[in-house]
Amino acid sequence: MSEHINGAVLVGAQECRPSGSFHAIEAVSGQVMQPAFCEAGASEVDAACALAAAAYPVFSELAPEARAKFLETAATAVESLGDTLIVRAMAESGLPRARLEGELVRTVRQLQLFAQVVRTGEWIDATIDTAQPQRTPLPRPDLRRRNVALGPVVVFGASNFPLAFSVAGGDTASALAAGCPVVVKGHRAHPGTGELVARALRRAVESCGLPPGVFSYLPGTTHALGSALVADPRIHAAGFTGSRGGGKALMDVAAARPEPIPVYAEMSAINPVILLPAAARARGAELARAYAASLSMGAGQFCTNPGLLIAIDGPDLENFLGAAGAAVQAIAPQPMLTDGILKSYRSGVAALAANPAVTRVGQGQGATEGRLASAALFATQAAAFKSDPALSAEVFGASSLVVRARDDAELEQLISGLEGQLTATLLFDAKDEPLVARLLPLLQRRVGRVLANGWPTGVEVCHAMVHGGPFPATSDTRTTSVGTLAIQRFLRPVCYQSLPDSLLPPALRAANPWKLPRRVDGVRQSAP
Amino acid sequence: MSEHINGAVLVGAQECRPSGSFHAIEAVSGQVMQPAFCEAGASEVDAACALAAAAYPVFSELAPEARAKFLETAATAVESLGDTLIVRAMAESGLPRARLEGELVRTVRQLQLFAQVVRTGEWIDATIDTAQPQRTPLPRPDLRRRNVALGPVVVFGASNFPLAFSVAGGDTASALAAGCPVVVKGHRAHPGTGELVARALRRAVESCGLPPGVFSYLPGTTHALGSALVADPRIHAAGFTGSRGGGKALMDVAAARPEPIPVYAEMSAINPVILLPAAARARGAELARAYAASLSMGAGQFCTNPGLLIAIDGPDLENFLGAAGAAVQAIAPQPMLTDGILKSYRSGVAALAANPAVTRVGQGQGATEGRLASAALFATQAAAFKSDPALSAEVFGASSLVVRARDDAELEQLISGLEGQLTATLLFDAKDEPLVARLLPLLQRRVGRVLANGWPTGVEVCHAMVHGGPFPATSDTRTTSVGTLAIQRFLRPVCYQSLPDSLLPPALRAANPWKLPRRVDGVRQSAP
Repeated sequence: MSEHINGAVLVGAQECRPSGSFHAIEAVSGQVMQPAFCEAGASEVDAACALAAAAYPVFSELAPEARAKFLETAATAVESLGDTLIVRAMAESGLPRARLEGELVRTVRQLQLFAQVVRTGEWIDATIDTAQPQRTPLPRPDLRRRNVALGPVVVFGASNFPLAFSVAGGDTASALAAGCPVVVKGHRAHPGTGELVARALRRAVESCGLPPGVFSYLPGTTHALGSALVADPRIHAAGFTGSRGGGKALMDVAAARPEPIPVYAEMSAINPVILLPAAARARGAELARAYAASLSMGAGQFCTNPGLLIAIDGPDLENFLGAAGAAVQAIAPQPMLTDGILKSYRSGVAALAANPAVTRVGQGQGATEGRLASAALFATQAAAFKSDPALSAEVFGASSLVVRARDDAELEQLISGLEGQLTATLLFDAKDEPLVARLLPLLQRRVGRVLANGWPTGVEVCHAMVHGGPFPATSDTRTTSVGTLAIQRFLRPVCYQSLPDSLLPPALRAANPWKLPRRVDGVRQSAP
Repeated sequence: MSEHINGAVLVGAQECRPSGSFHAIEAVSGQVMQPAFCEAGASEVDAACALAAAAYPVFSELAPEARAKFLETAATAVESLGDTLIVRAMAESGLPRARLEGELVRTVRQLQLFAQVVRTGEWIDATIDTAQPQRTPLPRPDLRRRNVALGPVVVFGASNFPLAFSVAGGDTASALAAGCPVVVKGHRAHPGTGELVARALRRAVESCGLPPGVFSYLPGTTHALGSALVADPRIHAAGFTGSRGGGKALMDVAAARPEPIPVYAEMSAINPVILLPAAARARGAELARAYAASLSMGAGQFCTNPGLLIAIDGPDLENFLGAAGAAVQAIAPQPMLTDGILKSYRSGVAALAANPAVTRVGQGQGATEGRLASAALFATQAAAFKSDPALSAEVFGASSLVVRARDDAELEQLISGLEGQLTATLLFDAKDEPLVARLLPLLQRRVGRVLANGWPTGVEVCHAMVHGGPFPATSDTRTTSVGTLAIQRFLRPVCYQSLPDSLLPPALRAANPWKLPRRVDGVRQSAP
């Protein structure tokens, strides 16, 4: 389907054209792209939130089948954008075609997966405790509980996943699945991509006959826009993927509201990889090459990029570092998502290079000027790492730091000193397993996902995935932003006591018209 | 079992006697009770948190059967305190014997119910997505997810439930069930009751051979003690029942930590009752008597006390008010939990009485001086209620306010203007049902539990219960503090990718040694 980008703010079914504007920048060339995009302001925030609040009572009470169909319609609409979308996203993000084609498939399948989840009805958690009128000393009333959508949700598009974690990405899909209308604050780096996807979602809303406020798209470049959305009393939760500073600022806005709301911010992580001795000895060179490939994939612009590798010092680590350095040296320079990200990457790499406690292990191809970023690999000693917090800071991009531990005890110390992370990866052979068994309890306290003999880049969208972790990796370690569990973030339980059957929501009626799995008097019953 | 109260701080298996001390006050007489209780300070906080952190790795990984047995052992230990506990709790709280005997049964059954919940293993949410090595373009790795305990939890004892929501109450039971070691900050109003229960829990920890840090008891009177516990980096969540000011202060401490943690604060509510026209006409007098009984039960010292009744003005409401006023006049004065609560109740009632927009409908027996509180019932117009926020403030105790609405539209306006509440109650007859259907969506957005033709006092501990609601009723509308769902507050998901079976936690191993219900490739499987 061919689709026109006109730079409007999409408030429900309306197009608004406030006066301020900005442009997308072509990532590879630095050229200004057309058209101009309107800057959403206070009046668009107000209008979008009002429409979302108006849509909530209908959208949140849709039967599962109707909401699932909407998600599938949205998936088809996004998929049908096809090459128009891919070409625009390539220009705005600098990401290669194959990556964006894969990301589009993920985005579409994610919406379809949530449609399946919605149909199961398990997320409603319908729970019935029947009345016991004869109970002594007091009778028990009839009590029925279900989950309902929190309310309208604001979603912040992410720079590094212009499709799978932006306008129709994981946060949007899981919030819509829960029954929450969504207002997207579009990312300034890919406004055309965002508008194309937003128009597809809007068509899905319309063709399913849903209230227009189910979805709005507000492009903009200011912090004020994001803050205004999180502060709006009609917004009941926020989903964010981005920097630690940005996430923390939104958490503060949310906590200062008269009625605080949850902010699901996925912020920063260095995703430690622990290389264990037997693995380093047996297949150090092979692991080194895989490490270089993982840290530089997508110019290192993944939340789960391995920014840290910890290993026990000695000849095996030297060999590993030699091979890793050589592999990094072969890596071609890559464009980054934005000028700001490129600049920030270079200053992070320069700070590591200038740190007297850090040595450079490998430097990718390409200069340190121009519009392409070159990969970088550094190493340091455990003592320096422990004493200098700057060495634990995320350098977003294709850079990683190897920390040399003296022995097992120092390895454990280093792990115990880590902040919250999205992932931890263990590279080990059978002989390492006793040490792995000791490290696992330490690691699982600090991360959402523990990997064995793999690489953290590549996040599967499935039921068992946890893309989360303790602060500062995310703002809420009790949840995930990828995978079907993400729907839980946007629900709250409500209990109904002694309500006549005709007044109960369908999910809790005696006849179970939605054919839900339910828990009755503590016993789980399958869907009829 | 007879049991000695000696006023010590119980840090794991140790008894500490820091220098500061305070005394319990007999609620009815105002007399100082013996012995003196030590004030827990910074060094006890440090020691208790260190022990809790040390206990966590063992306690959180116990097999469900072992943790269930511990909860049952704790239930038996608390139950065996018998009359020693009841007599001390009566003296410290002023609550009558029958009420405390009932509360002890609830406390014991609550621990037993959580033992059952732990045994089902459903809370682990074991979820397995098997590997698809042949998948294209990329193979899918083996991914397995389970819930683990957040970490050590601090629980604040509540003044109004010295047993069921204090040392071994709902927060403690659900946190222990999840696998979190618990540090209780004992309430100053019932330190002897608290110590008796704490000693019982300690015996259960010991007799089950668990690490002593699974439970500690820190009595004290200062805000500094509570803040220090919430700020301690080894604490991972807090459970609190009390005032809005107290809850908000702890939320702020938690949000300001380097690593913020969840605070589950159950704070204040006025629990609106909506009296609908046909019910008012058909059985106004009967409902009026039940209202007076509910608002004065336990001297009105329930979180779910009906502090507000909204009805449409007219002769039927006049008749209702006449009957309610008469019923309130017959209510005997009652002791309150503490001098502070009594004083605060009297000042709340005095403010209502002095408000020119408020009329007094009924005044219970007893003077406004001395140590007993008398019930009070007031009425006002909708316009006054909407314009004066002071009329929406909770008066903790046996006082309630009736608001006269002009018509259905004003009734809806009043409901839409309410803050978050624990409960809303609808009193209606069949003819009222169309209006009830319109009000339900408004009410369920503002409350955790909607009741039909009952009274909100009396909270069943069961699977379907929600004792929660939007801020300021609680700090987190996504949860409940009563009922089995409360265990979810203290869990977080962790994912394991490609881990060899022998290194996986038992919950996720191929052989399913804990015989858990699991979700495999999206399909729910019953326990084998």
